Amino acid sequence: MTRLPIEIKLSDTRKEKPNPNSLIFGRSFTDHMFIADYEEGKGWRRHRIVPYAPLQLDPASIVFHYGQTVFEGLKAYRTEDGTIKLFRPQENMKRLNRSLERLCMPKIDEEAALQALTQLILIEKDWIPTLPDTSLYIRPFVIANEAFLGVAPSKKYQFIIILSPVGSYYKEGIYPVKILVENEFVRAVKGGTGNAKTAGNYAAGLKAQEVAEQSGYSQVLWLDGIERKYVEEVGSMNIFFKINGEVITPAINGSILEGITRKSVLEMLRHWNIPVSERKISMDEIRNAYEKGQLEEVFGTGTAAVISPVGELNWDGYKMIVNNGETGQLSKRLYENLSQIQKGQMEDPFGWVMELKSDLARLA
Amino acid sequence: MTRLPIEIKLSDTRKEKPNPNSLIFGRSFTDHMFIADYEEGKGWRRHRIVPYAPLQLDPASIVFHYGQTVFEGLKAYRTEDGTIKLFRPQENMKRLNRSLERLCMPKIDEEAALQALTQLILIEKDWIPTLPDTSLYIRPFVIANEAFLGVAPSKKYQFIIILSPVGSYYKEGIYPVKILVENEFVRAVKGGTGNAKTAGNYAAGLKAQEVAEQSGYSQVLWLDGIERKYVEEVGSMNIFFKINGEVITPAINGSILEGITRKSVLEMLRHWNIPVSERKISMDEIRNAYEKGQLEEVFGTGTAAVISPVGELNWDGYKMIVNNGETGQLSKRLYENLSQIQKGQMEDPFGWVMELKSDLARLA
Ligand SMILES: Cc1ncc(COP(=O)(O)O)c(C=O)c1O
Ligand SMILES: Cc1ncc(COP(=O)(O)O)c(C=O)c1O
Repeated sequence: MTRLPIEIKLSDTRKEKPNPNSLIFGRSFTDHMFIADYEEGKGWRRHRIVPYAPLQLDPASIVFHYGQTVFEGLKAYRTEDGTIKLFRPQENMKRLNRSLERLCMPKIDEEAALQALTQLILIEKDWIPTLPDTSLYIRPFVIANEAFLGVAPSKKYQFIIILSPVGSYYKEGIYPVKILVENEFVRAVKGGTGNAKTAGNYAAGLKAQEVAEQSGYSQVLWLDGIERKYVEEVGSMNIFFKINGEVITPAINGSILEGITRKSVLEMLRHWNIPVSERKISMDEIRNAYEKGQLEEVFGTGTAAVISPVGELNWDGYKMIVNNGETGQLSKRLYENLSQIQKGQMEDPFGWVMELKSDLARLA
Repeated sequence: MTRLPIEIKLSDTRKEKPNPNSLIFGRSFTDHMFIADYEEGKGWRRHRIVPYAPLQLDPASIVFHYGQTVFEGLKAYRTEDGTIKLFRPQENMKRLNRSLERLCMPKIDEEAALQALTQLILIEKDWIPTLPDTSLYIRPFVIANEAFLGVAPSKKYQFIIILSPVGSYYKEGIYPVKILVENEFVRAVKGGTGNAKTAGNYAAGLKAQEVAEQSGYSQVLWLDGIERKYVEEVGSMNIFFKINGEVITPAINGSILEGITRKSVLEMLRHWNIPVSERKISMDEIRNAYEKGQLEEVFGTGTAAVISPVGELNWDGYKMIVNNGETGQLSKRLYENLSQIQKGQMEDPFGWVMELKSDLARLA
């Protein structure tokens, strides 16, 4: 592993850290950020850690007009003994590259990106909160910044990493959420960008989310855009159903995001010898299971909330109350195991957790 | 009509204007831009014309991560007698508001936006090129600039207008283009954002465009995302087929952009008593017409190229050569009439052209 030359310019001032008891997701950011520039023919250059500050972008930058941008999201935890842990960060860098490819953007060097990330986190280590359910949220993203109004891939990009100390994604902690099955709006369709982590997918979902919130639902469950029958995923989570002892999640199909929590949950369930199945699952099948009393648990999986139990599913006015609206046993077991492995409070039989190296700490 | 207070700060320096003989679409920008800020609870404020300069945006701005951004595109022409003309700018402002609505963004005041646009153009009037096929391209856009990583509509926005002197969109002038029918990738689907002019739609199309260009095609023809049978539109144009004397264009269906050139072409054709039809049209129907020798003309419509004749359509390797690969008579007639009306070289029976008011000129 070659060491990447990263120029470091530390901030003269330090911000006041937010109260760890009342952290809001994605509202406050640390003192520094990582930036690298890309130019066609020259590749990625000028890797640097600099004070967190506004980006300066030409108003004609392609990102504003044609949406060439992708991002990732992962978390760092500081454990009781002071070590810092990341959960499967290599997977995020791989997915970042898959997203970049889909959007005709230049790939990053995954290892170099991890080094940069590590170094930034070590510089900002005092920003990692330690209270239960708190962590440092990491947001790597790439934006197209060539000033050009033709619809064509940009010749210039910036790769940026920012960090935000966060509490629980859901203000109320792990508790069952109410989800509205979406019949009008569509998030993504096969052949589109649904399996890339790109801005346009989220913009497309805002309207449905707004409508759902107005009727008291916290998220929408997306259906496939073609037949409007099969379950896809939730706003920023993959979805799982426990039906008659078997755990079912929609198969990777080109239109849903390949969640890293999803992948980990599948591995964990298989490790526990719980029957799992990745396949198409329709709303009709879910309703049938519900009517037979076999819809035992429903939960979402994602970096922000880890496991998010679903207490109610509303499909066109037909309400399915799951597990009496309470968190199911399997949801709880998954949440505890995953979050304890992430924080280093439980043994990690899967080799998922990356501990930050102290030799890099010296550089900081 | 109330006069909007616009604060004007002129630039101390002026850029060198590009050579009008070799203008490239969307590459150079004028000396000034218009900006207004929006904040929840306060509405649109601080309308101002300022020197063209980089935007300063927090790296956590929602536009970078969740793609909340919409735009418009229109042109100003300077006619021989020095007057400045805009083509149906009210339609662009209406569409901007429809796009804003779809993306959960605050609406703008259409009249105020037109005033701002007018004033900016009058300040920059020397930037409007006068050679044939040149014009001043106008790009209004709105971006979400709240620094927040939660997936929710931003509480802060900027409305910006920039101007770019342009030549012909297609470097080679009006000449028939070769178009590849896209079978793998999908631009938009019913329930998605296809009918809004938002960044993510264009990002989604880049990959297909790249593949098409590699095999010598200049654009792709999108098919519907559900059955992959019905024609939608081209990269940044709506599409028309002249079959056996009748002109057919896909009906507005929720997934294609409601082009202003499309609307004008339909009105012009009806005015000329040429039979037109807005309806679903499948690739099978087009191939059948071709085989019977009835596919007389194909052309795209859009602000950038006005009318773009199609000389070849490639559907999965089946090549349809339209009108011997030459510009058809109707395409030519539409191009000449539309572009001459736009430039004030022909009478405007439709009332489409807006002439800039000289009383506003005094303000500049
Ligand atoms: C659309 C979408 N689906 C699913 C997920 C879950 O992915 P992961 O488990 O990698 O966080 C996310 C993001 O976090 C997402 O944005
Ligand atoms: C996707 C798309 N379709 C069609 C058009 C044509 O619209 P108009 O005629 O308003 O320029 C455009 C843009 O110009 C476009 O971006």
